[in-house]
Formats: sequence, structure tokens, C-alpha cells
Amino acid sequence: MSSSPFWSLVVPTLTPYIPGEQPTIPGLVKLNTNENPYPPSPRVLEALHAAANADLRLYPEPTGRALREAIARRHSLQADQVFVSNSSDDVLALAFMALLNHAPRPLLFPDISYGFYPVYCRLYGIPHRAVPLDTQFQVTIDDYLLEHAGAIIFPNPNAPTGRSLPRAEIARLLAARPDVPVVIDEAYVDFGAESAVPLIADHPNLLVVQTLSKSRSLAGLRVGFALGQPPLIEALTRVKDSFNSYPLDRLAMAGAIAAIEDEAWFEDTRRRVIASRDRLDAALRAQGFDVLPSHANFVFARHPAHTGERLAAALRERAILVRRFAQPARIADFLRISIGTDAECDALLKALTEILQHAAV
Amino acid sequence: MSSSPFWSLVVPTLTPYIPGEQPTIPGLVKLNTNENPYPPSPRVLEALHAAANADLRLYPEPTGRALREAIARRHSLQADQVFVSNSSDDVLALAFMALLNHAPRPLLFPDISYGFYPVYCRLYGIPHRAVPLDTQFQVTIDDYLLEHAGAIIFPNPNAPTGRSLPRAEIARLLAARPDVPVVIDEAYVDFGAESAVPLIADHPNLLVVQTLSKSRSLAGLRVGFALGQPPLIEALTRVKDSFNSYPLDRLAMAGAIAAIEDEAWFEDTRRRVIASRDRLDAALRAQGFDVLPSHANFVFARHPAHTGERLAAALRERAILVRRFAQPARIADFLRISIGTDAECDALLKALTEILQHAAV
Repeated sequence: MSSSPFWSLVVPTLTPYIPGEQPTIPGLVKLNTNENPYPPSPRVLEALHAAANADLRLYPEPTGRALREAIARRHSLQADQVFVSNSSDDVLALAFMALLNHAPRPLLFPDISYGFYPVYCRLYGIPHRAVPLDTQFQVTIDDYLLEHAGAIIFPNPNAPTGRSLPRAEIARLLAARPDVPVVIDEAYVDFGAESAVPLIADHPNLLVVQTLSKSRSLAGLRVGFALGQPPLIEALTRVKDSFNSYPLDRLAMAGAIAAIEDEAWFEDTRRRVIASRDRLDAALRAQGFDVLPSHANFVFARHPAHTGERLAAALRERAILVRRFAQPARIADFLRISIGTDAECDALLKALTEILQHAAV
Repeated sequence: MSSSPFWSLVVPTLTPYIPGEQPTIPGLVKLNTNENPYPPSPRVLEALHAAANADLRLYPEPTGRALREAIARRHSLQADQVFVSNSSDDVLALAFMALLNHAPRPLLFPDISYGFYPVYCRLYGIPHRAVPLDTQFQVTIDDYLLEHAGAIIFPNPNAPTGRSLPRAEIARLLAARPDVPVVIDEAYVDFGAESAVPLIADHPNLLVVQTLSKSRSLAGLRVGFALGQPPLIEALTRVKDSFNSYPLDRLAMAGAIAAIEDEAWFEDTRRRVIASRDRLDAALRAQGFDVLPSHANFVFARHPAHTGERLAAALRERAILVRRFAQPARIADFLRISIGTDAECDALLKALTEILQHAAV
């Protein structure tokens, strides 16, 4: 089906985002969609059970006030500096509509980055320009200062590279570009990068987007949020209230509050993921892989002697799933490997040892 | 705040939808947002408790397959004729983008109808025309045949009037307008109106939107769906996958499946609501109210001797909340009263008796 007379004109022009597979193969080692290998806090489950028993027949509080207050406390902000919605993809979709369309000036983002950004641009008709990463696959702030820009967005750490910029570089961008909105997408920030949140007080053009899917182990609950000065939050709220007044259900709200408030669980699980990442990074290097320095819950690695396509296929034959991006060409040989438990990382390493040895014969 | 240099151009032009209040006043009789007075099926709670204990760290299945299959079975359709998302407002927001923008031809909807329709039109820049209800506050199909139209949407039963059209009238519209998409918004259909779902097989231009918020007592869980031939479903899916790949969380999906499958609970609670509505309708008429014939879980009523504003305020003083719409002028004296339990309806009637007597002194 390429079109239908009943479709709005935009529909045939869309190239929807394709998320990583969610197969249900028994015994699968699933390292393809950057989920946390540890479960959410037990307090989240308690909160969900309580919320399931209470008033599901009634609409949720439409502004997410209690959750916004919990997030504000966690980040030393005010509730009117917090926006919440049904996943950080939802927050990004609303932010592209509310803050990133300054046609004819283009939105800038890295040429290798989150694949949803160009999809949103096509949906809303936002002019955009891809700014190349440098030869080390790093975002270079100076490149964003040279361009005519209506707005700027990039992830920090970037995906799928895992590389991060220090806060001082973000501050330099914000100071040099005080006239354009800058969205920093911090989906992976809790695994070792410097958050831009402390820059919000001095920079009215900064919006920071985070998610509970990764560092809070709640990909299945769909909760994301944005932090920024009140005028930016108001723009998101106006668009949200023109789209869906109640994007967060009662259970998601209750579970998210419990997750945000369990700092000890958060600290423990993120430190375990970081330790496993550093261990996996060293072991992959010992196998001859080039591994980009990662501050995320995944590593991005290639082997000089093997194509990414062959390695991913050979892992899949051994029921180990990683993610590979065929485009653009300069990352086609990289594998994006989510950090699992140490046992899952060991299974991956063992399989890679077999695959590399077999190829060497 | 009327604008900010960081806002996209559309933001200052928006007039967001304002949902009914969700106050937390002790002892409140809440008859203002058309929630079901009965809780969801106990099977929903069982499903939610099980889902909370399982794999919340993992993303949900992105296409909602299991829920689409359950809904398809319930409506004797195929899964590729079903689209699911995070509330029927979300489904409508996606449908306006995917199917209802045929500029420069206008979208038609009733002048007195769901207040979100003009909000979506402003968000997406969809040209639209409001078609007046007749003097009995009824949708008149002939009026939609006279107009130059790009697409058509109306609720059946209509909101906030509660009046419904028979299926034969919808069929007449579909046959006369085979060239334009027609969306029938059936949020309230389970309380006595005729659904258009049996017309889907013969009409590729028909999309029917329903919700679990009303007749399944799940306003707090945010699940809605659309039914239609596969090309219409594909348009919704393409836009959804350009916006948010996983709009339904694991709990919402599990709870919704259990609700759809408990036909006995659905039948029992909807019959109780219908019986209470008919009893309330008669009692209000006995008090001198004009009551529009309702097929919804609310009634729309005015008293010839009292303004709607005064009645709503006097009820509020007695901790009874109903909804009133100041605009347009010809419905300003109506109250939209959600059907509560019989005890809640009795509390309303007792309060109205006092208010009317007091005014008569």
C-alpha cells in the first residue's frame, strides 16, 4: 500500500521509525534495545499494585502534578520547570512540534544520531540539516556555531555511539546560541555522562529530556519528562493539551513516582551497569574490537577483520540479539551492544570468541 | 505568557482543550466527566497485578498485537482492521493528522460537539466548517451532503447532547459520500446507540473510534481504539510510528485485554447505567426539566425557569459537580449530568428539589 484517497497528504511522505525487534525466542540474550538488565525498584511494584486497586474508573490528574513534583524534588527544580508524558519519544514528538519548528531556519542535529529525529521532521515538515560527527564519531560544538540554525537537538550521550560531551561544552553552545532553543536528549545520561540540568537556571533556551526507560528499568511503563524554564514547559503543555489531555495513566504515574523516589535502587543498578560496561569494553578490546568510549548503557564496537552484518548474523544464530544500523555507511560495521548482566555479557563474549576463531581457521 | 522567541510559530495560535475538573473534595458527588460509576472487571485487576510483576524493564510489543486480536474477536473483525493507542483522544489526534486533513477542502463536524475537534484543527492547520445541529439538537445527515467536504467527523451518540442517529442514517452518509473519509466517534455507543461497526465491511471510507474509558470503566488506564478497513488502519499506524512507537504500556495493554474479554461484566454494568439514566431522565422531567433523549452515560438537561449557570453553582455549593458549557449560547442553560449510581442520582435530585423550591419562595 503506497497510498489511499482517504489518507491526508502527509501520510505517503512518511518513513516511520523502526524500533528494535521485540522477539520472544526462549533463552534469548537480548542486547538490542538498551533495556536495563535489572528489574525496577520493588517500591515501583508496590505502588503499581496499590494504584491498580484504586479508582481506575476515574480519569488521571491531567497535569501529572504529583509526578512533576517528585521529579522537581529529585532535580532541585520547581514543578513548573517539569513536563511529563507517555515516554521520552512522546515528549520529543511534542517538543519537535512546540519548540523545534522555526522554518525556514533549519533544525540541526548530528548525521549519526537517534533515528527518530528525521522522522519527526518529515511528520511536521520541519526543515533540517544533519551536521556530521567528527572522525572520532564525536559531536563537535564548533560545527553548530557555524550554521544558520532555527533550533538544535542532540542526545548526550549520543546514540548509537555512546560518546558524551562534558557539560562545559553544552554551556558553550548555549552561551553562543542564546537565540535558538537547544534540546539535549539525555536518555542515557545516568550511566556516567554530565547532565545539562544544572545549566537550566541560567539558560532560558535549554530543554533537557530524560526517560525512565533506561536507568529506572521501566521501558515497559512508558514515562519520560522534560526539564526547562517555565516558558518552554508552557509550550509543551499547550501542544499536549491540543493533542491528548491525559497522556499518563494512573498506574504509570504511580510507578514513576516510586521509581524517582528510590534513589538507592537507582544508584545500585546504574553502578552495576557501568561496571559491566567497563568490563565488557575491556574484553571486547582484548578480542581486537574498536570500541568507542561509552557513557551509555551500551557500547558501539566494530572488528577490523569482520563485517558488522556477518557478526550480527552469527550472534543471532546463537540466540544473541544486538543492533546494527546499515546506514550511514561509516557505521555499517559497528554493533550496538546493550549492557546485560555479567552473565549475559559473558555469553556474548564466549559467542564472539567462537565466531572470531571459526572465521580465522 | 502569550509567546516566547523559543516557541514554534503554531504555539501562540493554539487554544488548548480544557478537560472537566478532577477535584479531590471529600464526599464529592462527581457527575462532571462521564466516568462509569462502577469499577472495572475484577479480571482487569488480576491482569494488572500479573503484568506489574512481569518484565516492566522491557519495552512493550510495539504494535499492540494481543490487544488488537482481542478487540478484533469481540467485533468480528481481523487484527489488521484494528488500531490501538493511549486513549481515544490519542487515536483522534492521530486520525486528524492521518485521515482528516484534505486542505483546501474543509473537515465538517457539528457546531455543538466534542470540544477537542476544533483544537486538533488548529494544531494541524486543518480547514474546517461547523455544521449546525437542528432545532432539536440533532445531527442532520442531509446537511453534510450539501457541503463541499474533505472529510467528516461526528460523535454518535453526540456529545454533549447525548442524542444518537440510527445506523441507517450513517449508512446513507457513507453511500452518498464514498469519496471522503468519515470518522464516527463512538465513545458513548455502548449505552444504547447503534454502532456503525457492521458497516465497515462495505465502506472503505469508514473509521469507527471507541474507548475503554466509559463502558469498560477504565478512564484511568487510557486505552482507545479505531476500527476500519486496512488502508485506514495503515495510515494511523504510519503516523503513530512517526510519533511514538510504543504508545501503550505493558499494564494498559494487559488490563485492556482483560476488560474486552469480560463480556458479562460489561453487559451488567452498562445495563445498570442505562437503567439509572432512564430513571434520572424521568425524575428530571418530573421536576420540570427539558431533557434531551440520551443514548449516552449522561443526560443533557435545562430548566425553563433557571439559568444553567445558577443551577451548576448551587449544585457545586452542595458538593455536586456537573458540567456546563458557556458556549455556544444555545446550550448555555443546559447541564451535562453524568450517570452515577442510583444513590448519586438521588443525591442530585434531592439537591435540585431544594434548589428549585428555594428559588420559588
